[in-house]
Amino acid sequence: MKIAQELLRGDKRALARAITLVENHHPKSQELLQEVFPRSGGSFVVGITGSPGSGKSTLVDGLAALITRSDRDLGIVAVDPSSPFTGGAVLGDRIRMMQHSSDPRVFIRSMATRGHLGGLAKATGDVIVLLEAAGKDFVLVETVGVGQDEVEVVRLAELILVILTPDVGDDVQVFKAGIMEIADIFVLNKADSPGSDAMERRLNALLELGGEGTIRPPVIKTVAPTGEGIEALWEAIQDRRSSQSQGEIEQRQRRRIGWMLRTILHGKMTERLTAALPEAKFEALVDRICQREIDPYTLADQVLGEIGEA
Amino acid sequence: MKIAQELLRGDKRALARAITLVENHHPKSQELLQEVFPRSGGSFVVGITGSPGSGKSTLVDGLAALITRSDRDLGIVAVDPSSPFTGGAVLGDRIRMMQHSSDPRVFIRSMATRGHLGGLAKATGDVIVLLEAAGKDFVLVETVGVGQDEVEVVRLAELILVILTPDVGDDVQVFKAGIMEIADIFVLNKADSPGSDAMERRLNALLELGGEGTIRPPVIKTVAPTGEGIEALWEAIQDRRSSQSQGEIEQRQRRRIGWMLRTILHGKMTERLTAALPEAKFEALVDRICQREIDPYTLADQVLGEIGEA
Repeated sequence: MKIAQELLRGDKRALARAITLVENHHPKSQELLQEVFPRSGGSFVVGITGSPGSGKSTLVDGLAALITRSDRDLGIVAVDPSSPFTGGAVLGDRIRMMQHSSDPRVFIRSMATRGHLGGLAKATGDVIVLLEAAGKDFVLVETVGVGQDEVEVVRLAELILVILTPDVGDDVQVFKAGIMEIADIFVLNKADSPGSDAMERRLNALLELGGEGTIRPPVIKTVAPTGEGIEALWEAIQDRRSSQSQGEIEQRQRRRIGWMLRTILHGKMTERLTAALPEAKFEALVDRICQREIDPYTLADQVLGEIGEA
Repeated sequence: MKIAQELLRGDKRALARAITLVENHHPKSQELLQEVFPRSGGSFVVGITGSPGSGKSTLVDGLAALITRSDRDLGIVAVDPSSPFTGGAVLGDRIRMMQHSSDPRVFIRSMATRGHLGGLAKATGDVIVLLEAAGKDFVLVETVGVGQDEVEVVRLAELILVILTPDVGDDVQVFKAGIMEIADIFVLNKADSPGSDAMERRLNALLELGGEGTIRPPVIKTVAPTGEGIEALWEAIQDRRSSQSQGEIEQRQRRRIGWMLRTILHGKMTERLTAALPEAKFEALVDRICQREIDPYTLADQVLGEIGEA
């Protein structure tokens, strides 16, 4: 495919168009992904997650500045579950906020979470493949770390940063759905706020529980707006990367590929289901349940039986 | 089934055991759900969502007190995406916090989000069916409203409350993934905090954008710890319920049943996939991709082809 060849040469416009094809589930998107996949796998993919208001985006901007200063190409995927209420404005703001949006070495793309269950993870995985194939040295995947879907997305990364802030106080809700367990580096942002030291102690106490034999993730304190601590964070990322044994690197890549295969399988099953159940047919099934003609469990088995035979 | 019959008579222990069967995907859980489903649909299901720290649980406790005082049976499903780091403690705290956990009219159950993509929504839907069949007058489904999965869960309700607080300030992240669009009532909690009036104005300004012809959701101000505003909230819920036309009630029930059917189909597809790909087989596939023998897109099609034929 022409677009695949252009993308592999690093053409930015081809990359942008390719991402759009993938996001829209264009019929040609699979062929495109198949063609470029053998050239993927060369980027270092960092996942960055934190609760709303943790200063994630400002930290990502700071890292972007350091990465481009070291003359390396960077792709940013901002997984942004905005609502249509504020969505347009948020995405717009996010891109305007990026100091580096005009830097030719940075490619930034927002992904919305609209759409069906599990679809976001597949789409994000596909976009990472495209960015890798386009020759990015680094890919930063930025996502809100509260929901389950968002945690899934971060598993597509090789190295995972979890951002915490002192102002969450005692709200245990911030430690969610396996995020603590998969963090490679903790970032304690807003480290100039009151409660920062207490939060650090609390976090370290929690990490003590992490068990023997595992590498204890470092805790880096930052103040995103002033840039304090960003260089230390960047060093911690590089340290973590260079200290990986060959075995660890292979294990992480396997984890990533495994997770990617899961999201692709899941995404494709969902697409099949959607294709097999056009709106009118689906509504007719809902009618039968509403009238208590049949229960949804029996009906679901019938529907899946039909799809299996098709 | 004996357990189904006991549950339908309102036996609390049978209900607890039935929920455990469903959560564990016990082989008998489908038969149980099929048997009790015809007796479901009689509860008023209220979904309550808000970001971490918004005071959701305290509000739910306040509503629970008012509901039981009016001599009605209540089920509470707290969808709690806790991590294993703090999980046990959180669930324990949540139940201890419930002033009404010893009230025989209240049945409370926490659901964790561990497990595969989309599994949470199906499990929550199943638990609602069990609570309804057990004769609960009200079911409150409480969930953190930031992730996509959590939004899906709230769609299983007939009436949806979204809780906001003044202290989120200008953090646009709070308006996520379609939550604003599906709210029937907004609760502005921590209404005694500075910034409460500004937040109310901001929210009303946003709601102005909601478009003509739609019912504009009321905004109720509360202070959960003192109980201020909880009665007004309870009245707003009842008003909203009693002001629904027959057409609107049917439409909401269709929406709920439709969403439930989707989650069941999705959950069953995921189960099939898991059954067709035992660990060793899956790892062998990952190997082939890691060695770039095949791309994951082509491989996924092959796997799904095999499942379809099985």
